[in-house]
Amino acid sequence: MANKDNTDPARMEKIVSLCKRRGFIFQAGELYGGLNGCWDYGPLGAELKRNLKDYWWRKTVQERDDVLGMDGAILTMQQVLVASGHVGGFSDPMSDCLLSKARLRADQVPAQDGTAVWFSGAKLPASGWSVERQFAVLVAPGKDPIESHKTARKFYGDLMPDKKVSPKELELVEERREELTGTTSFNPENGSLLTEPRQFNLMFQTKMGASADDNDPNAIAYLRPETAQSIFVQYKNVLDSNRVKLPFGIAQIGKSFRNEINPRNFTFRSREFEQMEIEYFCRPDDGLRLTDEWLEARLKFYGEIGIPREKLHILDIPDGERAFYSQKTYDIEYEFPFGVQELEGVAYRTDYDLGVHQQHSGKPLLYFDEETKEKFLPHVVEPSAGCDRTVLALICEAFDEEEVTDEKGKAEIRSVLRFVPRMAPIKVGIFPLLKKNEEQVRICREIQAKLQPWMTVFYDDGGSVGKRYRRQDESGTPFCITVDFDTLGENGDELKGTVTVRHRDSMEQERIAVDALLPWLLERVR
Amino acid sequence: MANKDNTDPARMEKIVSLCKRRGFIFQAGELYGGLNGCWDYGPLGAELKRNLKDYWWRKTVQERDDVLGMDGAILTMQQVLVASGHVGGFSDPMSDCLLSKARLRADQVPAQDGTAVWFSGAKLPASGWSVERQFAVLVAPGKDPIESHKTARKFYGDLMPDKKVSPKELELVEERREELTGTTSFNPENGSLLTEPRQFNLMFQTKMGASADDNDPNAIAYLRPETAQSIFVQYKNVLDSNRVKLPFGIAQIGKSFRNEINPRNFTFRSREFEQMEIEYFCRPDDGLRLTDEWLEARLKFYGEIGIPREKLHILDIPDGERAFYSQKTYDIEYEFPFGVQELEGVAYRTDYDLGVHQQHSGKPLLYFDEETKEKFLPHVVEPSAGCDRTVLALICEAFDEEEVTDEKGKAEIRSVLRFVPRMAPIKVGIFPLLKKNEEQVRICREIQAKLQPWMTVFYDDGGSVGKRYRRQDESGTPFCITVDFDTLGENGDELKGTVTVRHRDSMEQERIAVDALLPWLLERVR
Repeated sequence: MANKDNTDPARMEKIVSLCKRRGFIFQAGELYGGLNGCWDYGPLGAELKRNLKDYWWRKTVQERDDVLGMDGAILTMQQVLVASGHVGGFSDPMSDCLLSKARLRADQVPAQDGTAVWFSGAKLPASGWSVERQFAVLVAPGKDPIESHKTARKFYGDLMPDKKVSPKELELVEERREELTGTTSFNPENGSLLTEPRQFNLMFQTKMGASADDNDPNAIAYLRPETAQSIFVQYKNVLDSNRVKLPFGIAQIGKSFRNEINPRNFTFRSREFEQMEIEYFCRPDDGLRLTDEWLEARLKFYGEIGIPREKLHILDIPDGERAFYSQKTYDIEYEFPFGVQELEGVAYRTDYDLGVHQQHSGKPLLYFDEETKEKFLPHVVEPSAGCDRTVLALICEAFDEEEVTDEKGKAEIRSVLRFVPRMAPIKVGIFPLLKKNEEQVRICREIQAKLQPWMTVFYDDGGSVGKRYRRQDESGTPFCITVDFDTLGENGDELKGTVTVRHRDSMEQERIAVDALLPWLLERVR
Repeated sequence: MANKDNTDPARMEKIVSLCKRRGFIFQAGELYGGLNGCWDYGPLGAELKRNLKDYWWRKTVQERDDVLGMDGAILTMQQVLVASGHVGGFSDPMSDCLLSKARLRADQVPAQDGTAVWFSGAKLPASGWSVERQFAVLVAPGKDPIESHKTARKFYGDLMPDKKVSPKELELVEERREELTGTTSFNPENGSLLTEPRQFNLMFQTKMGASADDNDPNAIAYLRPETAQSIFVQYKNVLDSNRVKLPFGIAQIGKSFRNEINPRNFTFRSREFEQMEIEYFCRPDDGLRLTDEWLEARLKFYGEIGIPREKLHILDIPDGERAFYSQKTYDIEYEFPFGVQELEGVAYRTDYDLGVHQQHSGKPLLYFDEETKEKFLPHVVEPSAGCDRTVLALICEAFDEEEVTDEKGKAEIRSVLRFVPRMAPIKVGIFPLLKKNEEQVRICREIQAKLQPWMTVFYDDGGSVGKRYRRQDESGTPFCITVDFDTLGENGDELKGTVTVRHRDSMEQERIAVDALLPWLLERVR
């Protein structure tokens, strides 16, 4: 009775709960109330994420002759991000609600008309807004003006409990609304007027060097908003230190940071996140073809880590909706329980990035083709995957509940993470049937020592074997090995030197010789 | 003629040059003049660092039952760092030079007396200092007052080229010196007075959330100055989600950030750096013993990655020089070419950290011992290693130059990185003797495909085999395989199906059967 049904409204809740209970993911700073949009990976989550990153690196860098790795700094010079356009343009238009002070994405607020109600004489604690602005409340069409008066008075009363506001202090100021606020938008939550949109840059800024606590503009640095820019900035150094020819890629895994106004959907949209990016440099003529080839390579990768093709959606971003420099962009989306959302973008960025860095740095970034004797700026195809959201997709895809019968024949719900073995945080659980049987424990420890240099192994001797299986099911461990009396040869020679291997998904068991375990497992877990 | 002589003054220069030339390490943002104290790892550096981190993780987390991994966020709540003492105390006392504006560590400036020279009427571009302060210059004992006048006038002239300063505008103000500057320190570089020391916090601060561009104190967050705090803050969650008993550890690899005033010694002291930390929780009685045990375990680790015991120095930090809460601290130091410097600290931190977080968060962090029914705060032993400085130690230790004869019998200097194979960025170079021989190339590619899922392999068919060896020597590749006419059986059956394996360190060669390569190499490179 598989329940991998994304329409189950409780599914995401169960996943979040399991992630905390089993130590996959905790909110950062939870002990102090939590840091919005930041997450810590616990023991199992850290292994899962490592497996994803290692497999990506192996497939993208180590097993390809045409891709080189790099690992750049997070702190980034202002000049780099001025050139890339992030300092000037990486921003959302934000409006503030005059009543609640909430900051809203201006482009997500529906336009609507109405009548403003306004406290004429009120004074408020210091803030950036004029008194008049602070007390403007919109009476939307169809909304009772009296109710809006009440809202405004209650708000005022909360802030200034010593002072009462009489109804005559409220005015209808329809005709003055635009003059007062410069806007016709209002907050759909409470009817209050919104300020004019301001551009809110999404980059985290910091200050560096000995003058960091003065107001020295040269001290400004940023946390990189994407790993890509350090690749473009080091493109020439990588080219000069390696004998590579077009087409070739530079790949990087690393953290990036964006001050998302509204982090949401668990780890999906966070302020600190890890990316797995490739900048694949090529001749201009090859860009479109290679974009399609990378899309296929990336889809194959998702299949190999256990995200099936039928759960992925390819969005071919139409003209006019792509970044202005991109000639082609595919979004690879996954069916999360909270909706279909992007895992990765594969974008043909032309020579835009190298072009702006060549222009701003004043240093030539041209590629010299020894065969044709041409000099030109390479074009670039960028497959850029979100690491944390892929981890989340792995967990969402793996999570399952099924009704089974327990050891005493009673029905129970088995909660299981069906990771493909190469992604599983723990590859093998190893149990002595009886923890007091020294010989069983000794053999377990021998097997563990033999396997551990090659894979993660978890030794467990607590509780019944059935309970131990359930714990490993929830951790996503694909194989459990039990050393029992048969292993010791106590029930005859036939099964001596063999162990029970239990499969997580089918719950079936088979006997395997101790000596055959390592190659048997290696074949299945890498 | 080995030259692993750390007293060679050019050694560090050669290492830095090789790191750039071969693509190990580049300065971050070099294209734009460089970001002081931040470094990017190129293709070989990224692999080397991965090898170090992977081996540490394998030995510390995966092969130990008593250590769990985690991976916490870099962005850190203010409350966490208030509790840990970093907001209040993680600072250096800094003084500004009134003349050059250089900021100096106040505790590193020698105290000395002298006489102040001062411009009485000068005006300067806006800055935080009063006009009088800006122009005070100290005349140190034995220093010619006339020379100091000249220095002061030149400085003034540079800033205000339109205005001349007459000698009478300079005053000797010995008696007013302290009144003017509040200090008796001066800059040994130029004789100028220094301001009173101010505490300069070493943490990078940023602002988070929708109010990040207002002056909302709740928006302040920090880049973590050490990975340790996220372990302490998540200690309870890790404990609750895993059935672990004391003693047990939580280990983490990740980036930390400190706004070092004076980054130096290549990557050794940088502003962005990666740590490999273990917090090992234990009963109070076991702290001192476990500190000694961890010291031994860590020394063993350094031996396994190729840093010999005789190059390491153990500093047993004496009473009065340790952090106030530490009952024992060892520094593990390595003989870098620029001096003996710390790689790792092994500190017995008692229950200080859990104690402050329990107090500040108001949530109990006690451990309940099921056997003794006691409740207590565990103590902690912290082996904390610098990842980037260990990478640098690996490179410094591996770098060697020796005189050899080239293919034509001429003497040349062979530059070689003698990494132990498990650390080497590339494990195997693979070459066809002749790149035009299709059969040799085909066999090379077959061998490459077979090895690549298990280790990094570099295919090279450019230039003479001797040149290819030299390139791999400089990359630190321990083994090179050449497929030649013997492999094809063209010189008889005896060597058919075998290849030449050349050893980097001895430059000796042997024949090995193609089928035996994978196990032969696996045994040597892991």
